[in-house]
Order: sequence, then structure tokens, then C-alpha cells
Amino acid sequence: MKAYRGFLIDLDGTVYKGTEKIAEAIDFVKELERRGLPYLFLTNNSTKHPSDVSDKLVSMGVPSTAEHVFTTSMATANYIKEQQADAKVYAIGEEGLHMAIEECGLKEVEEGADVVVMGLDRDISYEKLTKGALNIRAGARFIATNGDVALPTERGFLPGAGSLISVLSVTTGVQPKFIGKPESIIVEQALEVLGTSKEETLMIGDNYATDILAGINAGIDSLLVHTGVTTKADLDLIEVKPTFTINSLAEWTFGE
Amino acid sequence: MKAYRGFLIDLDGTVYKGTEKIAEAIDFVKELERRGLPYLFLTNNSTKHPSDVSDKLVSMGVPSTAEHVFTTSMATANYIKEQQADAKVYAIGEEGLHMAIEECGLKEVEEGADVVVMGLDRDISYEKLTKGALNIRAGARFIATNGDVALPTERGFLPGAGSLISVLSVTTGVQPKFIGKPESIIVEQALEVLGTSKEETLMIGDNYATDILAGINAGIDSLLVHTGVTTKADLDLIEVKPTFTINSLAEWTFGE
Repeated sequence: MKAYRGFLIDLDGTVYKGTEKIAEAIDFVKELERRGLPYLFLTNNSTKHPSDVSDKLVSMGVPSTAEHVFTTSMATANYIKEQQADAKVYAIGEEGLHMAIEECGLKEVEEGADVVVMGLDRDISYEKLTKGALNIRAGARFIATNGDVALPTERGFLPGAGSLISVLSVTTGVQPKFIGKPESIIVEQALEVLGTSKEETLMIGDNYATDILAGINAGIDSLLVHTGVTTKADLDLIEVKPTFTINSLAEWTFGE
Repeated sequence: MKAYRGFLIDLDGTVYKGTEKIAEAIDFVKELERRGLPYLFLTNNSTKHPSDVSDKLVSMGVPSTAEHVFTTSMATANYIKEQQADAKVYAIGEEGLHMAIEECGLKEVEEGADVVVMGLDRDISYEKLTKGALNIRAGARFIATNGDVALPTERGFLPGAGSLISVLSVTTGVQPKFIGKPESIIVEQALEVLGTSKEETLMIGDNYATDILAGINAGIDSLLVHTGVTTKADLDLIEVKPTFTINSLAEWTFGE
């Protein structure tokens, strides 16, 4: 087994399922901490601030600080900053997105935006969508935190960021640049934070279509764990396999 | 010139432009009235009640009653009623849609719907979209008043019904059945109201992609008038031409 020096770890379906913890995953993260191996939790949830995510993890017994969490909102704000450091941004999203934009030193505006950025917004309104559309029609670049079309909840599958974002792409005819998994951008941003190279980093997740494809698209090794979305039967139909597949993180053997 | 016995007439771009009347069109409608030729205004605007549309027309000097107006909301409610007379409907839309459903004797519900119907709703919310998605995932049929992606206004092009509707189609993977122009359904429903046959009816409008295609799709003759969206240059690029094309309705010659 190759001795990976850095770990990017998905959350929902990998470390917990909703409010239920996955014990083998928590033991795995504790082992990473014991060995002093750097890790970063990588989530397409754009709505929360990393400190809130970390609080939830700590309450479940996962060793974590806010610095261990990297959200697609943070990746999106970083990406905009890299492209244009003084970009004026019109943002449609929740607290996690607005705070990431602010923490990057970017300025939010209502009109005359250089960039329209959109993520999941459960307080969506026609006026917000109107301002997004008008800014894009006036020439703003269009960036989206993630393309997930559905959000698993206790009520069932609710509309995800990708479905809300389609209002702006359909009405303007402009396709957004997506940042979150399965895109490589979020992985590349995360590697900069983690400080490890592509060759020595492993992407771990339960969802082939987001987590594993993000690893493959970014050119890093991937580990699929069957504790969430993707089943063994699903995987049989897929040509490009993850580097590793296991039933639970208890099965993982650390290389030396 | 063929002597048409019935006329389906688009509104915005054909009879008026926003708040500005088109004098030649008003004279044309007056001539229809003088000759006792039946006409029906056919609109993809799902938000208004026919009496409100008629009030606007009367204020511009157009001879009209509520019975002269047929909206895509009325066509949609009629269509649902024909398919299933006791259908329970979850509706996302404005007053025009809710009133059309009520006037058809259909019952609106929040869950357990047989049909989810959606039109333009400028009071859209995540909760409405959630209920729409959950009803469709539970097996409700999905019907949309119209697919217009943009709404021309004084502020510019705002998100139209077709863009809001994409939230539900993207999140559920279910494509809606569209009712409004350019679909043939609204034309067929309108002919039933007008009481004339396909052979003796003319569809008049300014927009090739909606009005004229609706006529073509329904198998009736069409008249494009260059007072709105479609220009002569646009038309040069189109293979299937309208039956007639004129600059203004003042040019129309009635057959005997």
C-alpha cells in the first residue's frame, strides 16, 4: 500500500450520514491525527461556515478544527480572487457563501458585477434571480459553487444548487463555471491548503459521481467507501474505477 | 385572399408593445368586429386573469371582453380537466393560474397531487419548489404553462416561466408537458373556444418561435406581422415560413 501523506475526505455519506455518525470513519480520522498525517474535509455544501461544520464534527467525536474544513464556497471565493483580485461580486447563496466572499476580501454588489456567483439558497426569490440574470446579461462572468441537482433530507430529495442555478443558465443562455466536486478546481484549491502534492494525496468519498470523479479529474488517487451513495452494483457499470474500493474505512491499511 | 372565418391573435408585440398601443392592430380588430368575424386573443402570459387582460385592451380602444381572451393558464387548466376531471393539482404560479384552476373546478392540494403545474411565479420560494419536486418524485404528472425563458420588461429581460420551471425538471429528471405557444395544445384548446375549424382559422403574431410555430404545429395558417420580435432578417434564416408576412396589420386584405 502506497504511503499517502495527505487526505481529502468527503463528509456526508463518508464521515456521517445526516445526523448519524459512521464509527469506522471517525476511528480512521483519529488514526490520521495520531500519525500526524494532514487531512481536509472537502464538502459541496456551500451554505455553512467551516466553523459550523467543524462544530458538528467535534460533537460527533471527530478530531477537527475550522481549519480542517474546506467548503465549495471557500474554493469558489478563492477561485474568483485568483482570477480577479478586485472583482465585484453579486452573490446568491446562504451564509457560508457570503462569509467566504467577505473573508477573501471580495466586495459584494447588487449591480455592475464582474462576477455572478450562485450556490444553494433556500431563501431564493425572484428579485435575486432577476439581479443575477441582469448582471450576467450585462457581461458578468457566471460561476456556480456546485452542480448537485438534489439535496437528500428527511423530507426526501429537495432541489439542490444545480437545479436553482439552472434558472440563470436557462434564462441567459450562459453556462456557469462550476467549482465544486466533481470539478478539479475544488481539489486543486484544497491541495494548496493541505500543502501536499497530487502524487501523495488520496481523495476519499462515498459518491462516485462527485468525490471519486473529482479525484480522477484532478489526477489524484481515489478511495471509494461503500457507506453512502455508490453501491458495488453501481460501480460494476462504471469503466474508470476508483484507485481503491472498500466497505468501510476500518478496512484501510496505512502504507509505511 | 382566403376568407378566414376565425382569428387567433397574439397580444404583446402584435396588439400593443408593453404599455404602447399598435394603432394598425386596433383598427384591424375593429374591422373584425364590424364584419362579425370571431377572434380570440391568445397569450402565454399565465399570471393574469382574462378580465384584467381585457380591461387593458379596452383602455387602449380594442374591442374586447373577458371572453375574447384565452390565456395559457386557461389552456393548461382545460387540458388537465380533459385528462383527469377529478385531478388534485399542486400549482406554482400567480393569480391567473390559480383562478383558471378554480374556474375549471379542479382542486388544489399541497401534497398527494396527481398533477404538478407550474407557470411564472414572481413570488417563487424554495418551499414551493420543494413541494413541486416532492410531488413529482411521488409520481405526479408535470405540466408547464409555457416555456418562455425570458420576460421582456423595462428593466431588461427577466427570468421567464421556462427558466423557473427548469428547477423542477433538473432536480427530478422529469420533463414537463408544455401547453403554451409554440405547442399545438393551446391552439387546439383555443379553436374549441372560438368555434371555428383549423382550415378556416388564422394565427396572427409577431414572434416566429412562439406564435407562428404554434400555428404551424397545430396545422393552421399563420400571419407574421413585423411589429415585434421577429425581423425580416430573422425570417430569411428560417426554412418553414409563415403563410403570410406583413409589416403591419393595416396591410391585411380580407378575402370575400
